[in-house]
Amino acid sequence: MSRYEDDSLALHTDLYQINMAETYWHDGIHTKKAVFELYFRKLPFGNGYGVFAGLEKIVDYLEEFHFTSSDINYLKEIGYPDDFLAYLQDMTFTGTLKSMREGELVFANEPILRIEAPLAEAQIVETALLNIVNYQTLIATKASRIKQVLGDETAMEFGSRRAHEMDAAVWGTRAAYIGGFDATSNVRAGKLFGIPVSGTHAHALVQTYKDEYKAFHKYAERHRDCVFLVDTYDTLKSGVPAAIRVAKELGNQINFIGIRLDSGDMAYLSKEARKMLDEAGFPQAHIVASNDLDEYTIMNLKAQGAKIDVWGIGTKVITAYDQAALGAVYKLVSIEDDEGGMTDTIKLSANPEKVTTPGLKRVYRIVNKLNGKAEGDYIAMDEEDPQHAERLKMFHPVHTFVSKFVTDFEARELHELIFLNGVRLYELPDIDSIRKRTEGNLSLLWNEYKRALNPEEYPVDLSQQCWDNKMKNIESAKVQPKQQV
Amino acid sequence: MSRYEDDSLALHTDLYQINMAETYWHDGIHTKKAVFELYFRKLPFGNGYGVFAGLEKIVDYLEEFHFTSSDINYLKEIGYPDDFLAYLQDMTFTGTLKSMREGELVFANEPILRIEAPLAEAQIVETALLNIVNYQTLIATKASRIKQVLGDETAMEFGSRRAHEMDAAVWGTRAAYIGGFDATSNVRAGKLFGIPVSGTHAHALVQTYKDEYKAFHKYAERHRDCVFLVDTYDTLKSGVPAAIRVAKELGNQINFIGIRLDSGDMAYLSKEARKMLDEAGFPQAHIVASNDLDEYTIMNLKAQGAKIDVWGIGTKVITAYDQAALGAVYKLVSIEDDEGGMTDTIKLSANPEKVTTPGLKRVYRIVNKLNGKAEGDYIAMDEEDPQHAERLKMFHPVHTFVSKFVTDFEARELHELIFLNGVRLYELPDIDSIRKRTEGNLSLLWNEYKRALNPEEYPVDLSQQCWDNKMKNIESAKVQPKQQV
Repeated sequence: MSRYEDDSLALHTDLYQINMAETYWHDGIHTKKAVFELYFRKLPFGNGYGVFAGLEKIVDYLEEFHFTSSDINYLKEIGYPDDFLAYLQDMTFTGTLKSMREGELVFANEPILRIEAPLAEAQIVETALLNIVNYQTLIATKASRIKQVLGDETAMEFGSRRAHEMDAAVWGTRAAYIGGFDATSNVRAGKLFGIPVSGTHAHALVQTYKDEYKAFHKYAERHRDCVFLVDTYDTLKSGVPAAIRVAKELGNQINFIGIRLDSGDMAYLSKEARKMLDEAGFPQAHIVASNDLDEYTIMNLKAQGAKIDVWGIGTKVITAYDQAALGAVYKLVSIEDDEGGMTDTIKLSANPEKVTTPGLKRVYRIVNKLNGKAEGDYIAMDEEDPQHAERLKMFHPVHTFVSKFVTDFEARELHELIFLNGVRLYELPDIDSIRKRTEGNLSLLWNEYKRALNPEEYPVDLSQQCWDNKMKNIESAKVQPKQQV
Repeated sequence: MSRYEDDSLALHTDLYQINMAETYWHDGIHTKKAVFELYFRKLPFGNGYGVFAGLEKIVDYLEEFHFTSSDINYLKEIGYPDDFLAYLQDMTFTGTLKSMREGELVFANEPILRIEAPLAEAQIVETALLNIVNYQTLIATKASRIKQVLGDETAMEFGSRRAHEMDAAVWGTRAAYIGGFDATSNVRAGKLFGIPVSGTHAHALVQTYKDEYKAFHKYAERHRDCVFLVDTYDTLKSGVPAAIRVAKELGNQINFIGIRLDSGDMAYLSKEARKMLDEAGFPQAHIVASNDLDEYTIMNLKAQGAKIDVWGIGTKVITAYDQAALGAVYKLVSIEDDEGGMTDTIKLSANPEKVTTPGLKRVYRIVNKLNGKAEGDYIAMDEEDPQHAERLKMFHPVHTFVSKFVTDFEARELHELIFLNGVRLYELPDIDSIRKRTEGNLSLLWNEYKRALNPEEYPVDLSQQCWDNKMKNIESAKVQPKQQV
């Protein structure tokens, strides 16, 4: 993309956002304060929780948001008039962003982030925000899900070659690290984000030397840490014996970490290879496996007693293969009225789950002080103060008769103030503290919410005030159609 | 990623590539000429053909390939020694690339491209090449597949918000355009690649004005081309009537293109809306639909007599949702030996379809001169000359008894010379000629290969010489294991 030296991300938006911005600008309402919330309606993979990732990229995007000369020229070419373009030319992000921090656990129908900004700005940034959050959160969630079945065993992200182009390779592996993966094969991601990098050699090394013994030996001459890939010709007859021979010959000159299997029957091969390594005096040598692995194949391999203890996971995590999209949306919940106050807005739909929840809201994680476990999340109106309530009534937002009262709780607000009127107040944390945050957050959840298959549904409840406000808005919106006919 | 002003793509590779390069460099064989082929083993989606995309990005990548100061510093930090880094610092791509052109139809097990380069260079570029081709070819293929069920109806790519991060949004929509889509909603992709952009307004516009009539009217005051989104409150009771009212009131002041449906029962709503539009005197108004559409939902809607004639397709095309990864691989097929000649290489595998085909090869499309249709593709050794043969024997590479003789044919070589010893010889074509190439190529195929469900298998055959060479290499590789024990 060297064609435009000044390529910016301001045009990384859907055309309709620009058209709406123009309509608002023409109508003189482009600076009205608008509030949008970003959330998804359903957790991916049937998982019991999500892991939020994407804030760092969003912060970069909003801080650098501006239309470059080539952007403006292009918009002129496709027909936008000069007066409107003059307005766009000076646009920067001047709004307020409240957001969950990366590594926060997130559930369906709760706002991950909230933008309060002049209407036109808030509209134009929608596409990029969704593009970022949908992908990164999807991958962090998938990685965490895989990590749940691995326990303490090592997970390495190997999927760059199957990622959806280059950004996905690096931001995806960062998200996988946030979700609990231990390392990446992508060197650029290692450099950009400080993720540990991992990898030794491929089949090509063996093909080049046409002989496994020779190839492993040559590798070991230059690299202390050695994992030998043993399946180029015949895993048990040639690959593993060659690895053992080199490890014996070089002894302490190398750190023989182990072998890697990349094809064939992993359960059988790993058990046989384990025996051979043990008998040769390498009981500490690891067996690394990589070949289209995901949480299901891993559970299966474990059930078969496979002797694998390091897992190289590529395609299935970096593309979230079994559900390759998260459907987060960005909805207007309130807008400045002509008198300068705020009026809540709603979107109805023939699909009931697509009806929005109006108004400015906050999300609290209700933690039981007695056992330190989360009772559920509680969505309240901006002005409510559940942190100082004695007792909370939590009820199911669809089956409202399902309810409980909670006492002895701590209500942890999940949103941080990231930007205030265009000024960044939030310091981006380093990647390892984000990864630790994920871990800490997971310890708040009962195991029943974390299992891969049929997890319990974690409660995400609306406050009474929030629910009443939603009902009121639905009623008044339903009256409208009659005015049209 | 503003942390590194000089961020380059040279480190966009797997760590093991760098480790292998170091091994070769240390052993003094890093400049040996090596030949790698890139191909996939199975067509995605059960489709009968693939559409190649990715060459433009590859050309950019190879032309700009170099390690920056921050790349070298990072490699030093993680332990690489100065002598090897001095070598990397001066590395550029000095090899030869032969490749299919974008928009070429491609099938399983035929080389899409071939790299002949100094061993270390050829190895390091593998990951990026696969990352690019796997994604872009996947999406071009998916788009073409969807376009097959649409015929002449318009397909618009709307998926940026669900794409896997930002590169996927723009390169993916470019690939969809190559595959036959007609427009994109992504403005940046429009600017970067010259793809037509499309889009009018979202639900937020209606929510902002709280009234569809008012929102549509405001939009129409500033925009001549109008598609009104009619499902914010109630499609048939308020949305469509409001659209009709505005279209009638403004008459020739606007170009009332039509309405858009984004939720609910599309078959029912489109038929009812069609009646309403026709009765109101707008038989030419289009009905645009968008809501998780793909080739299957489209076939279903058509079977139900849905009155949709413009299709907004997002998630399912931009993520290739039902099969979110193409598994192209990059395999060493020949390498310079100690005497300066070339020796073919092979990789065996417990999975027979993973056995590679050794040697330098060319791919020809065998076109029957009598009917202008393709008889199949023919993979021959570099030195063979099927273009001047009278008669070709084509036989199935697995079931070898399935064979036919072809006469009166034209053998079109599918690879172009893109780089020769690091110098680019190929001029990148504009996007519209690539899209036309796809169309032209599709006209060579019988419809039986193009249908979405259970297409016939298009023949991709090896020449006798190519097959004999493979068998010889398999035999000699199988002898090796005995040397190891």
